[in-house]
Amino acid sequence: MKFAARISIFGGRDIDEQTYAETVELGRLMARENWLVFCGGAEGVMEAIAKGVSEEGGVCIGILKGQDPGSGNMYLTIPIATALGVGRNALLAYNCDVAVAVSGQYGTLSEIAYALQLGKPVVGYKSWPVEGVVNAGSVNDIIKQVKSIL
Amino acid sequence: MKFAARISIFGGRDIDEQTYAETVELGRLMARENWLVFCGGAEGVMEAIAKGVSEEGGVCIGILKGQDPGSGNMYLTIPIATALGVGRNALLAYNCDVAVAVSGQYGTLSEIAYALQLGKPVVGYKSWPVEGVVNAGSVNDIIKQVKSIL
Amino acid sequence: MKFAARISIFGGRDIDEQTYAETVELGRLMARENWLVFCGGAEGVMEAIAKGVSEEGGVCIGILKGQDPGSGNMYLTIPIATALGVGRNALLAYNCDVAVAVSGQYGTLSEIAYALQLGKPVVGYKSWPVEGVVNAGSVNDIIKQVKSIL
Amino acid sequence: MKFAARISIFGGRDIDEQTYAETVELGRLMARENWLVFCGGAEGVMEAIAKGVSEEGGVCIGILKGQDPGSGNMYLTIPIATALGVGRNALLAYNCDVAVAVSGQYGTLSEIAYALQLGKPVVGYKSWPVEGVVNAGSVNDIIKQVKSIL
Repeated sequence: MKFAARISIFGGRDIDEQTYAETVELGRLMARENWLVFCGGAEGVMEAIAKGVSEEGGVCIGILKGQDPGSGNMYLTIPIATALGVGRNALLAYNCDVAVAVSGQYGTLSEIAYALQLGKPVVGYKSWPVEGVVNAGSVNDIIKQVKSIL
Repeated sequence: MKFAARISIFGGRDIDEQTYAETVELGRLMARENWLVFCGGAEGVMEAIAKGVSEEGGVCIGILKGQDPGSGNMYLTIPIATALGVGRNALLAYNCDVAVAVSGQYGTLSEIAYALQLGKPVVGYKSWPVEGVVNAGSVNDIIKQVKSIL
Repeated sequence: MKFAARISIFGGRDIDEQTYAETVELGRLMARENWLVFCGGAEGVMEAIAKGVSEEGGVCIGILKGQDPGSGNMYLTIPIATALGVGRNALLAYNCDVAVAVSGQYGTLSEIAYALQLGKPVVGYKSWPVEGVVNAGSVNDIIKQVKSIL
Repeated sequence: MKFAARISIFGGRDIDEQTYAETVELGRLMARENWLVFCGGAEGVMEAIAKGVSEEGGVCIGILKGQDPGSGNMYLTIPIATALGVGRNALLAYNCDVAVAVSGQYGTLSEIAYALQLGKPVVGYKSWPVEGVVNAGSVNDIIKQVKSIL
């Protein structure tokens, strides 16, 4: 099992249906690129990305807030329990070559900040306008932006 | 030893001389209010606040990135080693009633994001313009803003 | 505020009355030595040591499992929330010059193991017979053993 | 990708050649059982188990001490960086159904203690004689003991 890159998806629990559908599509595209995908393992963006990756037979790792590996969403390939609470956000930043932030609240902002603090490139979609984040205009553009960075 | 409140100071290592001097003054004022002060324990804003607190005989806890309690700045009353790296930023958010962000780079942004995610009020001074942060115009105004929240 | 040494107390929630009383006495003696005391901040040994330290006006830091600084026992001078769950045991090992293990179950054993892994001396009282732990025969003997190590 | 069970291997960096060879064989047998294997990702027992698992095309996750995913041994299927230092030992306990301790020093003892604290069964081979650990007499016996627990 070899992957072409490691990509972390940042994003929150509360998203609208369109963003959910787009994130599922993003997951499919990432799996086709043979990228190993990391997410926070819960609902919303985290569930949608795992669903898309699993539909294409890819691998999506869920870095969970809790202590129970069974507490993640049903689409994760491999859930990893950390018992770190929101502190697990830092692990998503450590483990990627490039990060993609989709939508999101303050939790997503902390993930973006960690990634930028560690010098990891961040592509943003419908997310926080933080200096240093490269914005993408569509799901296909996210893939294009990530590929141009890798 | 009883404290009137627990305040975390967010802020980075690289600051100019004026910000350093203002942060020392902020530390003095906070100690006079009998606030227990938390910071990240390293240089810059973290050193300046500890210096000010110590000058007035207050207590400043340094939540350190490393594993060695001796690795913090010389003005800390009590350094606490965590070995959590930048992940220790979350602990500063857990442990305060109100947070104050002074200047800062991406590390400070992650601290602000954690505090807001946890519903802790954040007063900002020369720092990131994040929705939800109350801005202060001077060191005295920081104290005033924090007191109005407590 | 200067301390002569930093001592972590390892020990569990479930202890008998005699061990509780002895641990309170141990806390009093440690405060008289002007040692900064760290414990896990919960019940049992952790409560008894904080009670003893507070009775003599010393400082006992509680390194809490949870995210809420208010969740520790009532005798702590300064509770520190970590949200690390049982993973907070490692912090007790990082932060001491010498550790003292009183009674205890598997949680205490993990604390002892961490301390020994880090090369920190451990004095044991009614606790796990692990190679490398110096056993003490009474509360006064604990103090004597720690002083001979410092 | 579905696994029959999640097994964590506890064990240290310094082992003799025979233990290394036996641990490689253990990894092969575990992969044949379709168990998802977790280890600490470094040298010694951690390298040998990953080598064995990879030889049979299984999946071995390395829960790394450091912040760099590239710092693990070369046989890991998926390294996960935590930046938790020795505190990452707790994650090995959270993520398993059953743990297997092979040889080991104090780090291994802390892993055993965490697993037992969480109520996870531990099978020991040439390791610490802790109450609650089931001892196995050979590599084949480890597999047999784990299967009887699952």
